[in-house]
Amino acid sequence: MKFCSACGHPVTRRIPDGDTLPRAVCDACNTIHYVNPKVIVGCVPEWEDGRVLMCRRDIEPRRGKWTFPAGFLEIGETSGEGAARETREESMAEVEMGEVFCVFNVPRIHQVYLLHRARLLRPDFGPTPESSEVCLMREDEIPWDEIAFPTVWHGLRYFFADRAAGRPGFRSMDI
Amino acid sequence: MKFCSACGHPVTRRIPDGDTLPRAVCDACNTIHYVNPKVIVGCVPEWEDGRVLMCRRDIEPRRGKWTFPAGFLEIGETSGEGAARETREESMAEVEMGEVFCVFNVPRIHQVYLLHRARLLRPDFGPTPESSEVCLMREDEIPWDEIAFPTVWHGLRYFFADRAAGRPGFRSMDI
Repeated sequence: MKFCSACGHPVTRRIPDGDTLPRAVCDACNTIHYVNPKVIVGCVPEWEDGRVLMCRRDIEPRRGKWTFPAGFLEIGETSGEGAARETREESMAEVEMGEVFCVFNVPRIHQVYLLHRARLLRPDFGPTPESSEVCLMREDEIPWDEIAFPTVWHGLRYFFADRAAGRPGFRSMDI
Repeated sequence: MKFCSACGHPVTRRIPDGDTLPRAVCDACNTIHYVNPKVIVGCVPEWEDGRVLMCRRDIEPRRGKWTFPAGFLEIGETSGEGAARETREESMAEVEMGEVFCVFNVPRIHQVYLLHRARLLRPDFGPTPESSEVCLMREDEIPWDEIAFPTVWHGLRYFFADRAAGRPGFRSMDI
């Protein structure tokens, strides 16, 4: 950040009065510009035969790798609403959103992941501008070596472990 | 946002190519400015006799009302690290951070809350620039009508309910 987004004046970087960290501060209009981690929301959409919906990324980063639907939480959404929107955008599928089952901190890239269980409502899905392939996979069909991000890998592992154990669990982890 | 924080040019508000929501876009340097919800991290610090650490806010909003330590997650922190930092800033107390036990979506104010259990390491704490009073409270001493925010109220209720049930649980809720 080089310029104040409120007035257009150049900002300076300093610790504001009463604060403990350096911020971009505007000396013209006194706005303090905070930058904070972002929330990624996602879900594992499960079909009635136990298969889960996976998308092959057709956008960078990690184009060609596999993920469940996930993306940035937007203003005004709950994590469940955001995960349902991402599912629609990436796979054209409609889901009934379930509970949060993973919270992952990824401080190196300034992200917090919230992952939900979800129920795929109909077996209607397909490729989109964001996904070159969308398909249902059994656990033994998951391409573990071709997963887009560590958060997706761990989320899927936890999802299947909980299902095998017969009880929905919750995990938080720093990655 | 009226001006581009990268180049200082006025921004326009429109839906970028390939996107679905209007964003502040700079037509001079092509930067798209995303605005996303923020993460609030907090913890319920428990002393060895079962009392929990509460702070009376000495800053707006809700000055004079009670809360456990909580605040905005900063860049580079995990939720546990952020909650420990907030505990230090608001109460001068040191904690051993425990697990996430609540995820609250508060979409109206663009916030996601992550609340941790925590163990107060020493009975050393006191007022700070952010808290006019800091004290240990038994469950029956919590001023339920003087709690700063609904998220704090629900978090405390869940904390005590889980403790009474003898098993650490996890809740997610939209508020």
